[in-house]
Amino acid sequence: MALIVQKYGGSSVANIEKIKFVAKKVVETKRKGNKVVVVVSAMGKTTDNLISLAKQISQNPPEKELDLLLSTGEIVSVALLCMAIENFGEKAEGFPGYFAGIKTDTLYTKARIQKIEPQKIIEEIEKGKIVVVAGFQGISQENSITTLGRGGSDLTAIAIAGAIKADICEIYTDVEGVFSADPHRVKNAKLIPVISYDELLEMASAGAKVMQSRAVEFAKKYKIPFVVKSTFKEGEGTMVKEVEFKEGAVVSSVSIDENQAKISIFKVPDRPGIAGKIFSSLGNAGINVDVIVQNVGKDNYADISFTVNINDMEKAKNIIDKIKDEIGAEKVVVDPDICKVSIIGIGMMNHPGVAGRMFNCLAKEGINIEMISTSEIKISCVVRKDKGQKALESLHKEFIENENQGQ
Amino acid sequence: MALIVQKYGGSSVANIEKIKFVAKKVVETKRKGNKVVVVVSAMGKTTDNLISLAKQISQNPPEKELDLLLSTGEIVSVALLCMAIENFGEKAEGFPGYFAGIKTDTLYTKARIQKIEPQKIIEEIEKGKIVVVAGFQGISQENSITTLGRGGSDLTAIAIAGAIKADICEIYTDVEGVFSADPHRVKNAKLIPVISYDELLEMASAGAKVMQSRAVEFAKKYKIPFVVKSTFKEGEGTMVKEVEFKEGAVVSSVSIDENQAKISIFKVPDRPGIAGKIFSSLGNAGINVDVIVQNVGKDNYADISFTVNINDMEKAKNIIDKIKDEIGAEKVVVDPDICKVSIIGIGMMNHPGVAGRMFNCLAKEGINIEMISTSEIKISCVVRKDKGQKALESLHKEFIENENQGQ
Repeated sequence: MALIVQKYGGSSVANIEKIKFVAKKVVETKRKGNKVVVVVSAMGKTTDNLISLAKQISQNPPEKELDLLLSTGEIVSVALLCMAIENFGEKAEGFPGYFAGIKTDTLYTKARIQKIEPQKIIEEIEKGKIVVVAGFQGISQENSITTLGRGGSDLTAIAIAGAIKADICEIYTDVEGVFSADPHRVKNAKLIPVISYDELLEMASAGAKVMQSRAVEFAKKYKIPFVVKSTFKEGEGTMVKEVEFKEGAVVSSVSIDENQAKISIFKVPDRPGIAGKIFSSLGNAGINVDVIVQNVGKDNYADISFTVNINDMEKAKNIIDKIKDEIGAEKVVVDPDICKVSIIGIGMMNHPGVAGRMFNCLAKEGINIEMISTSEIKISCVVRKDKGQKALESLHKEFIENENQGQ
Repeated sequence: MALIVQKYGGSSVANIEKIKFVAKKVVETKRKGNKVVVVVSAMGKTTDNLISLAKQISQNPPEKELDLLLSTGEIVSVALLCMAIENFGEKAEGFPGYFAGIKTDTLYTKARIQKIEPQKIIEEIEKGKIVVVAGFQGISQENSITTLGRGGSDLTAIAIAGAIKADICEIYTDVEGVFSADPHRVKNAKLIPVISYDELLEMASAGAKVMQSRAVEFAKKYKIPFVVKSTFKEGEGTMVKEVEFKEGAVVSSVSIDENQAKISIFKVPDRPGIAGKIFSSLGNAGINVDVIVQNVGKDNYADISFTVNINDMEKAKNIIDKIKDEIGAEKVVVDPDICKVSIIGIGMMNHPGVAGRMFNCLAKEGINIEMISTSEIKISCVVRKDKGQKALESLHKEFIENENQGQ
């Protein structure tokens, strides 16, 4: 008998048939002798529809009211899933965020969990009930509804699993687990049975859409292991946990991020404080900068290039244009036709030469590398967007397929 | 400076344009120097849509979960209306039912208000905010969401008006007020400027769709006056309050109820306890019986006829069929082709002869009366359904139009 937290995302509860299917799975888990807490997201596109309603009133709807609005989406799922569970003859207890004891700060739309008071949840489990909790939402000190940011239901599930000391937290989704590359783009992509928190975090920042980073960071911080698996297909999924060292492949996955744009500032005087000025201006405007490269040229001038999300490109250009004269730069050029390919693996830490192998692999395919960025367990290269798919496939062949052939 | 509670129903907030319109009205009321609390219903058909989702899971969805589900409808309206109000530059504070201090019993789907703790609402008004409360919902002692039954938002508004000692409670709806008859059916129907709680209650039981009776009963019990008026048309509306005696017309309104069916039990032995058995069986099954007529015939047999809501007709017949032999009756006949026309007015109490005038009026039109039921301020006649419209028009002419001509 285990204490299990299961999280079902929006696509898993997108319609009544799917809700019934999820209810059946939950009930089966319970009847195997387990205690079950379920965390659900809003049905399908509900959250997007609610946001669109709010935008019809105001382009920048007030965040506190927006959170109140969005919180209704998960409550609908909770109520319907409870009904479906009770239809199978089990007792269910539904918890909207404000009853589930998830206390947050008042950073509406992206609130941070400060404390979880899981007593009520535990009480209901002890009564033999299946507890169903609304994901994505909490309650602030000033007693208002908050939400945890998009994908926050993963965070809810992991945080509750930690608070109630669950034996396992299962994140059910529409994919079978974490793959060595996006299976829609690389036909030999393989399911990864075990992956470390850090690798999953680097994958997210490399453009792989697996899980919200905050949820993974939370799991890492409190050492809460979890499994990512498919709602509708049987399978073991991917276990995400603390991994110190892994046998086998040096690289566990290959990713591509095509939502990046490059901004280059030419002939920037090479003086201290200039880069600080540029990047703090962008930071103050809420723009995340990813890869940064600075080449110092002759005559004490430097060219600075960096990448931002393509949606921030215009905004970033406007900011840099404004401070261009002040910093004495010559011109600013934006380039949306790039992408970023990355290889990720904790094995890299113990295997020198991985970077060289990556650059050679791309060179062999005639792909020019425009920017390079590295971390302990990730190497990213910015290349032309039209070379992205080719780069992805070659890197997957080089590091995953060939590597495994040898095993 | 007045303290005003305004309630806007589902049709008043059916879409974003209407929500903006309502926000403008609310803001104008505030800017005239008033303090404003707004109670809103779910947008348009939201509640029906949520019920239909639940019915796809279970024909009889568990009531506690149903309440949790339905409560989301009003919360959406609250959040959107707050956004629209803030767009006009006023501050708003939204209250879902669980924060508004409306404590109920645990009779899910039709919970009764036990206590209102309006301190938080008052605090926010005192800060100069417009308070927006989700209608229709409360919180039970066991900390679960409850709903107050269909149309419960009227009750929320009136109860809050009472608890915060509001100067006036305005019920905004899609009609201009309470009319002497349904204006869609009687072209000379007139707006009633002032009406008593009792008359409005009798109108509801006579089939007029004006307001939920529980809301009116609550208003009557705590002597909370309110106004029914149109959201979108200017006008004074109808003031509903304690009225002891009214000059002018004896009858204030004429109603028709076409959702009735007649059930007749023939040749019932005229023994004590038989009628009790019949009607307690129906009561136990939750079937409301309206008009009851018993004719004692010869040989100590009686014929008993009564009306029920047409949706309960089959269920009622099945119950009576089961006890028919036990009570020794001959046969049971159902008749869905009837309707009930009623005249209502507190003036009746001081004017004898109103009933006779009603029967004569119908007789003159060749309309046969099948059943009669009276209260202090109402007389109802059951007639053939195809004579209903004619009966309604003649009674309106007799008691409202001719009466007022003389003034």
